[in-house]
Amino acid sequence: MNDKNRQIVLKRNPRGAFSPEDFEVRETAVPSPDEGEFLVRNIYLSLDPANRLWAAPTETYVAPVRTGEVMRGFTVSEVVESRHPDFRPGDLVQGMDGWQDYAVSNGVNHNGRGVVDTWKLDGVRAAGLPLTTGLSVLGTTGLAAYYGMLHVGQPRQGDTVLVSGAAGATGCVAGQIARIKGCRVVGTAGSEEKCRLARDEYRFDAMIDYKAEDMDTALAEHAPDGIDVYFDNVGGDTLDTALAHTAMGARVVICGAISQYTTAEQGIQGPANYAHLLFKRASMAGFIVLDHYPDLRGRMEADLIQWIKQDRLHYRDEVVDGLENAPEAVNRLYDGRNLGKLMVRIADEP
Amino acid sequence: MNDKNRQIVLKRNPRGAFSPEDFEVRETAVPSPDEGEFLVRNIYLSLDPANRLWAAPTETYVAPVRTGEVMRGFTVSEVVESRHPDFRPGDLVQGMDGWQDYAVSNGVNHNGRGVVDTWKLDGVRAAGLPLTTGLSVLGTTGLAAYYGMLHVGQPRQGDTVLVSGAAGATGCVAGQIARIKGCRVVGTAGSEEKCRLARDEYRFDAMIDYKAEDMDTALAEHAPDGIDVYFDNVGGDTLDTALAHTAMGARVVICGAISQYTTAEQGIQGPANYAHLLFKRASMAGFIVLDHYPDLRGRMEADLIQWIKQDRLHYRDEVVDGLENAPEAVNRLYDGRNLGKLMVRIADEP
Repeated sequence: MNDKNRQIVLKRNPRGAFSPEDFEVRETAVPSPDEGEFLVRNIYLSLDPANRLWAAPTETYVAPVRTGEVMRGFTVSEVVESRHPDFRPGDLVQGMDGWQDYAVSNGVNHNGRGVVDTWKLDGVRAAGLPLTTGLSVLGTTGLAAYYGMLHVGQPRQGDTVLVSGAAGATGCVAGQIARIKGCRVVGTAGSEEKCRLARDEYRFDAMIDYKAEDMDTALAEHAPDGIDVYFDNVGGDTLDTALAHTAMGARVVICGAISQYTTAEQGIQGPANYAHLLFKRASMAGFIVLDHYPDLRGRMEADLIQWIKQDRLHYRDEVVDGLENAPEAVNRLYDGRNLGKLMVRIADEP
Repeated sequence: MNDKNRQIVLKRNPRGAFSPEDFEVRETAVPSPDEGEFLVRNIYLSLDPANRLWAAPTETYVAPVRTGEVMRGFTVSEVVESRHPDFRPGDLVQGMDGWQDYAVSNGVNHNGRGVVDTWKLDGVRAAGLPLTTGLSVLGTTGLAAYYGMLHVGQPRQGDTVLVSGAAGATGCVAGQIARIKGCRVVGTAGSEEKCRLARDEYRFDAMIDYKAEDMDTALAEHAPDGIDVYFDNVGGDTLDTALAHTAMGARVVICGAISQYTTAEQGIQGPANYAHLLFKRASMAGFIVLDHYPDLRGRMEADLIQWIKQDRLHYRDEVVDGLENAPEAVNRLYDGRNLGKLMVRIADEP
């Protein structure tokens, strides 16, 4: 164990895309757990679209990360010291232990509304899956896809489902779950490579390259009877065009709006076609999957593991080496460079 | 009975507000019912915000009224001749018999998705209420308020409910129903007179004059814990600001968007703050009350009549004389001049 703790701190609120200058590296002593706490060594750090929301100075669904604070992030970690009755050294856990080498935790991660407990990755290990899945398909990313698609979107067999950001870490899981439920699944992505990945690896029935095709024409072709469920990760023009193609009684699931996060300071693009909610007797709803962990996390994880085992659910993890590279790597989410769930390897697996 | 049938026909699709030149008057012979049909003499014609939507050339929730066709409208009428087994001369009915003196009907009014049957105003008469209520509080206007508030908005006792267009025919009913259900009800309207009417007559707990006050400041004052149910009749800035003030788990009910109907050709203002659906785990849904008439009209009418009898539900009917004045009068809806449910008296009550 090192005796130094590298921390990446938010130095200033970003304008537009993240810049490495928005962060600074700080070295502190490794903290010691008090009674009821444990010390973790972070192994993998999740980079998520929501990072940019958290780093803005405005309240969203969580309090913003303040300048001078360690940047917030989901982590897969090893417990190295414990004064907490439920955690022992050697336990592998998923928590929210931030952009740093070490963290002290009491096992409770506040998320603005309620709390999310640090959980042990026993399910991942028992299934023989890589630890990285604790941040990807079996982490918040995959669980958001599960909850949003099944509980909010409520797809029915035979429905036409549209997923934006279909090659992304959440979109690919959302689309595959809809397909498992007997839907015809159409996706959008921003390159031929991503479209091919979604078609070949995630088995989307049809893909639309929104940078190369006219979305309106493409939706008329691929969803001629309208969209029953739209799982939206991107917002902007894609959301707007999709609303105009909703079927009667459609459910629009707002999971994210990545196209808007880096331009929010210049104003968000509202969906001008929202009146289709009226015309189509449709609904549009947001959710935060963390709210549902106490009730549903175990059940959702078990289903996802089963589908992976049955080879019906594929995923892709993209690991960047080195905590020091997180400030640069996080921008891959917003400029469309990443393929799969983006994370940083902070330390070797035990 | 006259032997001429005056019809007001849509001559051209309006640009911006309705203009009297968008219509022309045509005189035809009074039609004769075939087997299975009946002839009605229209007494009252409902003028509704949706009229402007119907007169645009684009598909909304119903097919557009085509140029050269009689303008579509809800009516209260007397059956004057019948070859239909369920209707007899002298029956008073609510139907969709248009901007004209006489119409032949088979009792089934297509509304784009399903059908809405012409119904007899027996409930209105048995309750001793004016026939005009068949178009206002007991017509589509009041029923939309009922369905939208109770079935879509699902207010709970103690909720803070916001209603836009609170002095309007739908808004005033929506607000009073929320109050009956034990909510604290805040409204918006565009004049001091309307705000006073809503406070004094419809007993809103607080009113915001959106033309005189800053909406953001006023909502912070009147809904300090956030809005649990927002019943939106107006769209535009009011919807956008309200979204930023939603409480956790809020339900936003899209009943209409009157601020946008006359400017739709220049582009609709989408709600930039829709991301609050995500932040607040909220939902936004549209509905068309006509869909629910087969199952719920009788029950909804009975509740509304009971509340009127108990003096818990007030309404106001604004009647303009003369079918020929409909093209001018309809603009009162969009420029904010009307107070109460706007309708035209086409003929004297029997």
